[in-house]
Amino acid sequence: MSLDALFNPRSVAVIGASRDPRKISGWVMRNLVEGGFAGPIHPVNPAGGEILGRPVAPDVAAIGSPVDLAVITVPRARAAEAVRACAAARVQVAVILSSGFGEASGGDGTALQQELVATARAGGLRLLGPNCMGVFSAGAGLNASYFWDLPRVPGRIAFVSQSGAYGGMFFAEVRARGIGVTKFASIGNQVDIRHQEVMAWLAEDPETAVIACFVEEMKDGPEFLRVLRDTARKKPVVILKAGRTEAGRRAAASHTGSLAGSREAVLAALRQAGALVARTTEEFFDVAMALDWYGDRLPANDRVAIMTVSGGPCVIASDAAEEQGLAVPPLREAVRETLRRHLPFFAALGNPVDMTPQCEPDRYAACVDAVLAEPEIGGCLALNCGLDSAAFGQAFAAAEARHGKPVVAFTLATPEVDRVFREHRIAVFPAPERAVHAYRGLLEYARVRARRGGAALAPAPPSAVLAALAPPAGAVLDEVAGKAILREYGIPACREAVARDEAEAARCAAALGFPVVVKVCLEGLGHKSDRGGVVLGLRDEAAVRRAAQELRRRFGPGVRLLVQEQVPDGVELILGARRDPQVGPVVAVGLGGVFAEALRDVALRVAPLTVEDALEALDELRGAPVLRGARGRPGVAREPVARAMAALGQLMLANPQVAELDINPLIGAGDRLVAVDALVVLAGAAADAPGPPRHGTVEGNGR
Amino acid sequence: MSLDALFNPRSVAVIGASRDPRKISGWVMRNLVEGGFAGPIHPVNPAGGEILGRPVAPDVAAIGSPVDLAVITVPRARAAEAVRACAAARVQVAVILSSGFGEASGGDGTALQQELVATARAGGLRLLGPNCMGVFSAGAGLNASYFWDLPRVPGRIAFVSQSGAYGGMFFAEVRARGIGVTKFASIGNQVDIRHQEVMAWLAEDPETAVIACFVEEMKDGPEFLRVLRDTARKKPVVILKAGRTEAGRRAAASHTGSLAGSREAVLAALRQAGALVARTTEEFFDVAMALDWYGDRLPANDRVAIMTVSGGPCVIASDAAEEQGLAVPPLREAVRETLRRHLPFFAALGNPVDMTPQCEPDRYAACVDAVLAEPEIGGCLALNCGLDSAAFGQAFAAAEARHGKPVVAFTLATPEVDRVFREHRIAVFPAPERAVHAYRGLLEYARVRARRGGAALAPAPPSAVLAALAPPAGAVLDEVAGKAILREYGIPACREAVARDEAEAARCAAALGFPVVVKVCLEGLGHKSDRGGVVLGLRDEAAVRRAAQELRRRFGPGVRLLVQEQVPDGVELILGARRDPQVGPVVAVGLGGVFAEALRDVALRVAPLTVEDALEALDELRGAPVLRGARGRPGVAREPVARAMAALGQLMLANPQVAELDINPLIGAGDRLVAVDALVVLAGAAADAPGPPRHGTVEGNGR
Repeated sequence: MSLDALFNPRSVAVIGASRDPRKISGWVMRNLVEGGFAGPIHPVNPAGGEILGRPVAPDVAAIGSPVDLAVITVPRARAAEAVRACAAARVQVAVILSSGFGEASGGDGTALQQELVATARAGGLRLLGPNCMGVFSAGAGLNASYFWDLPRVPGRIAFVSQSGAYGGMFFAEVRARGIGVTKFASIGNQVDIRHQEVMAWLAEDPETAVIACFVEEMKDGPEFLRVLRDTARKKPVVILKAGRTEAGRRAAASHTGSLAGSREAVLAALRQAGALVARTTEEFFDVAMALDWYGDRLPANDRVAIMTVSGGPCVIASDAAEEQGLAVPPLREAVRETLRRHLPFFAALGNPVDMTPQCEPDRYAACVDAVLAEPEIGGCLALNCGLDSAAFGQAFAAAEARHGKPVVAFTLATPEVDRVFREHRIAVFPAPERAVHAYRGLLEYARVRARRGGAALAPAPPSAVLAALAPPAGAVLDEVAGKAILREYGIPACREAVARDEAEAARCAAALGFPVVVKVCLEGLGHKSDRGGVVLGLRDEAAVRRAAQELRRRFGPGVRLLVQEQVPDGVELILGARRDPQVGPVVAVGLGGVFAEALRDVALRVAPLTVEDALEALDELRGAPVLRGARGRPGVAREPVARAMAALGQLMLANPQVAELDINPLIGAGDRLVAVDALVVLAGAAADAPGPPRHGTVEGNGR
Repeated sequence: MSLDALFNPRSVAVIGASRDPRKISGWVMRNLVEGGFAGPIHPVNPAGGEILGRPVAPDVAAIGSPVDLAVITVPRARAAEAVRACAAARVQVAVILSSGFGEASGGDGTALQQELVATARAGGLRLLGPNCMGVFSAGAGLNASYFWDLPRVPGRIAFVSQSGAYGGMFFAEVRARGIGVTKFASIGNQVDIRHQEVMAWLAEDPETAVIACFVEEMKDGPEFLRVLRDTARKKPVVILKAGRTEAGRRAAASHTGSLAGSREAVLAALRQAGALVARTTEEFFDVAMALDWYGDRLPANDRVAIMTVSGGPCVIASDAAEEQGLAVPPLREAVRETLRRHLPFFAALGNPVDMTPQCEPDRYAACVDAVLAEPEIGGCLALNCGLDSAAFGQAFAAAEARHGKPVVAFTLATPEVDRVFREHRIAVFPAPERAVHAYRGLLEYARVRARRGGAALAPAPPSAVLAALAPPAGAVLDEVAGKAILREYGIPACREAVARDEAEAARCAAALGFPVVVKVCLEGLGHKSDRGGVVLGLRDEAAVRRAAQELRRRFGPGVRLLVQEQVPDGVELILGARRDPQVGPVVAVGLGGVFAEALRDVALRVAPLTVEDALEALDELRGAPVLRGARGRPGVAREPVARAMAALGQLMLANPQVAELDINPLIGAGDRLVAVDALVVLAGAAADAPGPPRHGTVEGNGR
């Protein structure tokens, strides 16, 4: 169903409306009336009478005309009754402001909430909330929220917030900046209408150009990510992700020793889906508002000019720009020559350009134009402390218009400059770094828009190996089974064979070709090498026989022996996957050994992931130079690794019973890639049991 | 000389004073008069007449009474003349506002500046500037600056700024926050009075409690750091370091392939000396102002409570606190029980504590007190969006006073709460993260204050080995000489001997004990292993002879052979030192191989460094777990490594002709530490020459 009735209702009822403006129920009535809603507003209260000139209906059924949207302000104990009445009266959407439901850790909140949901669902009524702050829709003149004094200027930003307080912060910010808002929805406990449904509706809303979301919890993470991916292709989505619900999961992750901390998984997933993930509250608002103004003037590249009349801030801005991955390249001599003609001899012509306070105001225009005309410059930061000349503002406005490149500003105590900037939609931020971060957000969105994305791999069938083995829940498969499953999904694994005794081991080795490795094949595993369960570098049948004999002596005559090709040296990688409770299967890649473990240098992507996604993940690794062949050693081609990552995502999606999978090491050299050891853990009882010893370190083929 | 005449002059002259308030020269006059300076103010201008009721002297000599401070506002071409006149009239300090001197990249600015300095020095006149914004001193009622509308409230922060614009930003910030300022000095080009001299004076100024510095360039970095170290022991010093002048040096660093990028060296040096180094403009002002208010209420530990009535911001604050290295520990059950008694059933009792908007206002006090009474909690963040109850503010103010623990706040739209907070000097920040960062600044200062520091090693004598060798400038010493120098300073190096032929090599090996390594000993060096110049694992004399023969065949019969003990396995470190143009000798430590190179995982300290400094550096390494023995391998004790770092600092200070020194690898296991290869590069011609091939990677003992 569409959310038209939520954002563009034809009529509204306030259930529990009050005459007392100090109560929420009176406050919301006043907000609705003062907001200028054009359709009928029906206060509902058994007490009857009149509120703000509207007759009060004793109950919703008594209204006598269709109600699209009901705002429920009654105490929690009476909320279910109100929902029932609304459903009976064929109200389309109810916004439940009342709290004390699922968010309440003690008491009967959860039970009450379940009753709300069941009642609404039975009656075909959609719910926003409970425990929310309401909804605002500028086009409809609808303010069915706690918030008053909302912006009257037209706007294009929509804000979806799980936190009511962030709603207040958002409105305070837009008010302070003189920016308008198109829609606001406080989604509270998301018992019915969730983040993603609002996002999907806003993606199609012609009045909305930018979507900002404050997210605490994703209900159905994979669905959220799917909607986010589709939405981010249409308009920018800026997200501030609060981590509360991850504290517990983070603890769990450290308990299982998993590589992919949930917080990191969620942030990686949001970015992968195309969201601009803000690091701080200020950056969240700054970037959302910058995209509102600059959506049609994004930087074409990462090279920015910094132009100023104020030395210190321009140094700080240059530092911040470089730290944020922007380039501040020196200008060509031809441009410097132009600048030299117009500026005092002591001006700084390089990039940054310090025109100095002594610059004649009639020269700004020529200078700024010369810099923005440069094809290699993608946009500009304009900085000005206290030199309040309208000509300064006009110079940037004119050059921006002429060259279609964004100019983002930091100013202090320059009301005239600010006025000109505002007229031309050049945003002014209150610190040099904030201007830089906002500009960086524009660049990031330009990149999201330019992303080719690549085709997702087709869904793969479930593993035949796994079906044949039919292992119990919670089982930990041995490495032979693990690698057999990998091969099914096109991930190359080392050639190997299982032998029961010395003679069979020798035959296997001869078939594989020397040198070989012989090791014990155990389920569950553990540190085979440490326990003397691996013999490397066997060059002939006699050596294989001796090794097999020794292993049988040590681990018992019944032990299975694994004879493997000895994989030549290369770059050691680890590749893993696990299921994140919020976002689903997550694929992790890192370099082997200390990189992944001691340094936590691991990049994550959620499944399904494209080869492009995987390549981006590889580029994120701090140890990425090692992939290219550091220290005179051969590197590994990125594409086979990326294909293996994408395939591992397919594997996890096709086999929901696989809880975790670790390939360690995955050895690559050039185009060759070989999984040497693999651990597959199935979902189930293992979660409760103490669990098998984990795949701690480099292992497998004796490395 | 003291800066009393600058900050507490008895009389002031304005050279070039004007009647026109639109000119700087008129503006400064007005600022001085309106600032309420109690002593005489003498306008000086050949035009004579009267300005703001003061008779204008035709020149400074004509004033007829002693002048402590002169403010020079004349154009640059006449500045030297003004300085000469001031010196002749025995003025003590001149503040030169005029610009176009050393900061100007073209023209005669530098020459003019040199003239200023020479003239002033000859006449015993001290100079602030040129190219500065003047000086402000609240106690003296002195506003000899560009800035007007300065704070009238008493203050304890002093601000020393190389950037005039940051002066304006600073005053705008304190005005907005209602905070007072004790002193302000804009130091401009620092031709005479430098950052460190002002800092040293402020360190002793009883009116100054916090020193904030905007630093672009340190003139005499080692001296700056010495003063900073002394000052930071007395009061907090908050620094925003702008990087402009490092761009060139950074390029140079990448040219020499040095590990220690200059920017990183400078930031490490500032922190080592005890400064609080801000990452952004906002953090700079936030932390400085927090220290002003909380200097006497610093957190005793890193465990913070977060208390709120607003859910979303408290999640974001928790995230930010953890990301900033603060702990947000769960509260003891006894405290939770107290909270449970006072709060609605759906409140969150854990830490963070969400008292919820439904909390009765008379319950705040008991809750906040119960939390701050906890000995394990060092302080508290108070967050409130829109619930404007004075009781909320009073609860925190009372608990803070009772328990002497800092409370730092974020609020939105709560004027009553803010009023109470302000009365009790609880600072309110405009975003949850900014409150967290300010709190983090308090903790960091508490740590600086608690630092034991440790004793600096005594200065060491110059190297006798180096004196005996008497190598030419720019020379690159061979590893034998390098290690001989290390041993002089107590850095253990592998046992080794030089041999000319097979027989001598065998004798050396026998004396060292087997196994040994034989390698060629070349000056300059390069990748000995790659060139087949290293033979490992020689277990008897015959093997040594064969190896020596082969190396002589390959490298020529005249090659010197180095016979070394084969150092057992351990943790591979690299230790290096170079001279930073700003801060002097810098010691760098990292883990061997890819860690230092691919990951740039290197920690820096300037010399002289204490063992404590070195231990802190080791803790900063991302790869620090490897030192403790990751992946089942033995670790290395930190103390011997730290001692070697401190000794390397001594070595660099004692031998100024050593430009660079690299120990790679330095192998450690337990308490044993051995330098296996060392490269010493002397200062001199090498800087211009193409330079020797660099010590690229793991090398030396064949590793």
